[in-house]
Amino acid sequence: MAERIGRLAVVGLGLIGSSIARGARTYGLAGTVVAIDRDAGVLERVRALGLADLATDDLALGVGGADLVILCVPVGAIGAVAAELGPHLKPGAILSDVGSVKAAVVGAVAPHLAPANPFVPAHPVAGTEYSGPDSGFATLFANRWCILTPPEGTDAAAVERVQAFWQGLGAIVETMSPEHHDLVLAITSHVPHLIAYNIVGTAADLEAVTESEVIKFSAGGFRDFTRIAASDPTMWRDIFLTNREAVLEMLGRFNEDLSALARAIRWGDGDALHALFTRTRAIRRGIVAMGQETAEADFGRGRDGPRPP
Amino acid sequence: MAERIGRLAVVGLGLIGSSIARGARTYGLAGTVVAIDRDAGVLERVRALGLADLATDDLALGVGGADLVILCVPVGAIGAVAAELGPHLKPGAILSDVGSVKAAVVGAVAPHLAPANPFVPAHPVAGTEYSGPDSGFATLFANRWCILTPPEGTDAAAVERVQAFWQGLGAIVETMSPEHHDLVLAITSHVPHLIAYNIVGTAADLEAVTESEVIKFSAGGFRDFTRIAASDPTMWRDIFLTNREAVLEMLGRFNEDLSALARAIRWGDGDALHALFTRTRAIRRGIVAMGQETAEADFGRGRDGPRPP
Repeated sequence: MAERIGRLAVVGLGLIGSSIARGARTYGLAGTVVAIDRDAGVLERVRALGLADLATDDLALGVGGADLVILCVPVGAIGAVAAELGPHLKPGAILSDVGSVKAAVVGAVAPHLAPANPFVPAHPVAGTEYSGPDSGFATLFANRWCILTPPEGTDAAAVERVQAFWQGLGAIVETMSPEHHDLVLAITSHVPHLIAYNIVGTAADLEAVTESEVIKFSAGGFRDFTRIAASDPTMWRDIFLTNREAVLEMLGRFNEDLSALARAIRWGDGDALHALFTRTRAIRRGIVAMGQETAEADFGRGRDGPRPP
Repeated sequence: MAERIGRLAVVGLGLIGSSIARGARTYGLAGTVVAIDRDAGVLERVRALGLADLATDDLALGVGGADLVILCVPVGAIGAVAAELGPHLKPGAILSDVGSVKAAVVGAVAPHLAPANPFVPAHPVAGTEYSGPDSGFATLFANRWCILTPPEGTDAAAVERVQAFWQGLGAIVETMSPEHHDLVLAITSHVPHLIAYNIVGTAADLEAVTESEVIKFSAGGFRDFTRIAASDPTMWRDIFLTNREAVLEMLGRFNEDLSALARAIRWGDGDALHALFTRTRAIRRGIVAMGQETAEADFGRGRDGPRPP
């Protein structure tokens, strides 16, 4: 059994932050939960939902006395928030985050912390297309991976406490370097989001096909992209700006491959198409077999169908 | 109430064909259901599942006496099947299909039919990533659109009978020209599938990121693409080869837009990224509001989670 956190401070009560607060209470991982957000509307919802013992917009007050502070703000804001709260951390307090980019976050946070305050960067690979404190839930991280990327020399005990915390939320913890994390996530998350955003934009701009037609006939594949393309704009803007090199590198490979596919279509090379389409099925099976996905057809949408129009 | 079909012949008992056979029985849309497939293994499953009154690999026998014949074979095979069965249709028998491409299908089928046999092309915009007679279910088409693309001069009564049949399966029927259909589906279905297949292939080819890592951390967005990229390879090869012009046109636009996005990332133009990411949310809302999608977060995967690994 992991040692309980005495006082937990969560900064930013969106989907992830509010899920952490809920999970910490549900699974008894912290004695006191402090919610910090600069948005009065969010704090009001946090109080109404009873997500924390204290809800405040005062960063210094909120992190004072905390044993673990988790930053759940967009990646682009993490440096500024760390600069502001750094001086108010008590000695030995651990700082962590949930950002989807890690090398840039390590670079932005490290200068603002005293040696007595270890930084253990974390990235729970979980989420939905919804945002805000109402969208969170305690089981969001169950059976999901959480990647820790402690820079070399990070206090081992601090890493262990953060690891135990995430395991308490139900996550499976893996450790890797910030740089490798950013490469892995560029292909498994960032580029998929980019091309989803892109095709939804392309479809919206067509003259020959109306937006109403795009919406109506989206069940042929398009709608899965629109779910991804409904994710939080600020969070994703920051991800692309802070993981630029890895995203552009992976995007370059994607484009090369897509050019080859376009060429196969233009020249009628059915064998090349069939070979790729067969190969990709195996990866899907691996994902379902590893428990990272439901095997239910069409995510289980098919049998019941969505609500009638 | 629609006039019941006396004898219905379904050619090709995959996901769509077997769902039609099941639906025809469940909703009492046909007196007799004949299942025709050249694959002995498929016929065995059709018999075991009790999907039809007669299951045969003899096309001439199967379509003889049928009032409505629906071709549910890959688009690339429709012309050859039509050529073979054309002479065996009884006068007045209606031929239809379920192909995802329509202009090429009209061109491939028309030459093989007698004037007494109207062809009413149809495309139910529904499906899952699974294939074969076991994957079908009667409610697959409920609240889904089915697009009819009768060429000019098609017998109006025949169009009405096919329309009534699809409405009997629960579909919402819309009519448009074959050419417009192919443009609409290129952007709502064909290009989304192509880029999903493509990114799964790109990910599989990386040296710096292992396939195991891609599978593990797929919950960040990638796994939604793998579902689409698990669709039937032969069906999709044929779609790209027969809807070549529209697919390449839409793909060209997609590429232009993606280049602009890559440029915005490279030059740190956060405003351009944020503006696009905000715009795409509205289209998602339209799809959910129109009943073509569940509003449940993450397709409802989040709260229960997939099976543990």
